[in-house]
Amino acid sequence: MPTSDVLVAGILNGDTSALGRAITLVESQRKDHLEKANTIIQKCLSQKRDAIRIGITGVPGVGKSTFIEILGKLLIADGNRVAVLAVDPTSTQSKGSILGDKTRMEHLVKEANAFIRPSPSGVNLGGVARKTRETIILCEAAGFNIILVETVGVGQSETTVHGMVDFFLLLKLSGAGDELQGIKRGIIEMADAIVINKADGKNIKQAKAAAQEFKRALHLYPPKENGWIPTVLTCSALENKGIEAIRDLILDYIEKNKISGHFLEKRKRQNKNWLYESIEERLKSDFFDDETIGPELDKFASKVMAETISPFQAAEQLIGMFKNKS
Amino acid sequence: MPTSDVLVAGILNGDTSALGRAITLVESQRKDHLEKANTIIQKCLSQKRDAIRIGITGVPGVGKSTFIEILGKLLIADGNRVAVLAVDPTSTQSKGSILGDKTRMEHLVKEANAFIRPSPSGVNLGGVARKTRETIILCEAAGFNIILVETVGVGQSETTVHGMVDFFLLLKLSGAGDELQGIKRGIIEMADAIVINKADGKNIKQAKAAAQEFKRALHLYPPKENGWIPTVLTCSALENKGIEAIRDLILDYIEKNKISGHFLEKRKRQNKNWLYESIEERLKSDFFDDETIGPELDKFASKVMAETISPFQAAEQLIGMFKNKS
Repeated sequence: MPTSDVLVAGILNGDTSALGRAITLVESQRKDHLEKANTIIQKCLSQKRDAIRIGITGVPGVGKSTFIEILGKLLIADGNRVAVLAVDPTSTQSKGSILGDKTRMEHLVKEANAFIRPSPSGVNLGGVARKTRETIILCEAAGFNIILVETVGVGQSETTVHGMVDFFLLLKLSGAGDELQGIKRGIIEMADAIVINKADGKNIKQAKAAAQEFKRALHLYPPKENGWIPTVLTCSALENKGIEAIRDLILDYIEKNKISGHFLEKRKRQNKNWLYESIEERLKSDFFDDETIGPELDKFASKVMAETISPFQAAEQLIGMFKNKS
Repeated sequence: MPTSDVLVAGILNGDTSALGRAITLVESQRKDHLEKANTIIQKCLSQKRDAIRIGITGVPGVGKSTFIEILGKLLIADGNRVAVLAVDPTSTQSKGSILGDKTRMEHLVKEANAFIRPSPSGVNLGGVARKTRETIILCEAAGFNIILVETVGVGQSETTVHGMVDFFLLLKLSGAGDELQGIKRGIIEMADAIVINKADGKNIKQAKAAAQEFKRALHLYPPKENGWIPTVLTCSALENKGIEAIRDLILDYIEKNKISGHFLEKRKRQNKNWLYESIEERLKSDFFDDETIGPELDKFASKVMAETISPFQAAEQLIGMFKNKS
């Protein structure tokens, strides 16, 4: 394995092989690897970057891969360099991830200006999130100016991705019945755009009706901090229809927010949130992963659920044990 | 001040003066008071209780006090004993709370079977929440079988109250234009019922239209875990119209959920959540309130926002400082 200086030089030179190796270090569980990764990230951080980060979410079957492929190809044709990352908490299970193998993006994978990396595996969502965020920094240092972060609506993964991107896109299908039934709570509120995919053939009419319903629903929410009212569009990733309009919408959003200052504002807020979240996560894992505390916590939780001790007193006793121990 | 044994005996005897004194101990900042309070709570906890807890929220001006008064009087007429508590984070400010003085419930305050207590002051929301929850335990031990917890939509106060009640009611007004504009994100998802107040005089038509709009909006959300679809009703607290229907709805909800087991399930889950939240709150306050960490945190936050250090590395360095210190 090359030294961190060699890897950094490679990354800054746009060498995807150096980039891939650095990401492997970021994703490693080995302590020496992580230290080396930290050195590399620190050096890459100081590089000026003006990349934009786009989150894309949707349930399995909505056509995320095809959509990302077609959008990615369009962005590359425009002269961009595009990295595709994934946040998939199911990748931590041995059975393989919901998002699956990124090599199924068979066209995009052949593009010289595309870099595709599947979700890191073997870690919890917090770990996936951290590793993905560090990977974004590395990709940007390597000159990828558009980062697409794909996620699937499992647990908190959408909130996590929403907290690391500049624009958040929800991909949907039209279907029979009420279009908004079954949408995860809070997801509509996070979306900057909702795109109804598979608006092709005999689905077109249905897709347009779904778009109307979403527009009405979005109208019920208060506007976002930056004044943006989420937009609803339809497309067919399969037939390559409506993709330009989506690209235009995203770039328009980014431009407006850069001019108004909301872009940088959001980035700063996201970074600060990540600092606080990292601290809190670490404080919690130190406590909850403690070997002595684990069994005691279970005992106290049973008592609290049976209402034989108040939650506050139980918490105080557990914290007392933890402090006396260290 | 009587001994804790005397106070406990008084509480269990339904003596509101003993109850009031015990709550004063709970709300005190003095360490000896809090220890005494803990002893009392622990003894009260072991008492069998079958009280129900109802959260009521709504913006200032919606008529919460009048509504609670009229609902409280109805419940007392049914043979219940009703305690009214408040969670108001603004009560921590010297200027006085949004919810204001509970003595303005001038009719309810005269009822022998009513107990009204304003929001504890001088503490943050976490503190208000904890003290309110402990007060609920004391009120229930004193034989109050219906606890009404009033809150105003400031910060996280609604989520906090939602986490301590069996039924959560959102009070609204009809108004010009889109009824759902301006509703705080997430609040609709928490409500078990939405009640349009001030459906009287020339407002009746408007109130009914608002109810229809809310019904449509609620239809867009997935049903709750217990299968409940939130109900929309109209009422006039001023003219005492529609209050029986609201009482019936709440009691019907409680009965159904007791039979299905969701009632106890939710209580257990709430208690467990409170244990975890108490632990996390304590871990965080130990860190963030630390005198050495405070200024360092500000320095690192600036660096993180300027992207000269990654949030994760900043977090690790800060945690390192904290551990070396203790």
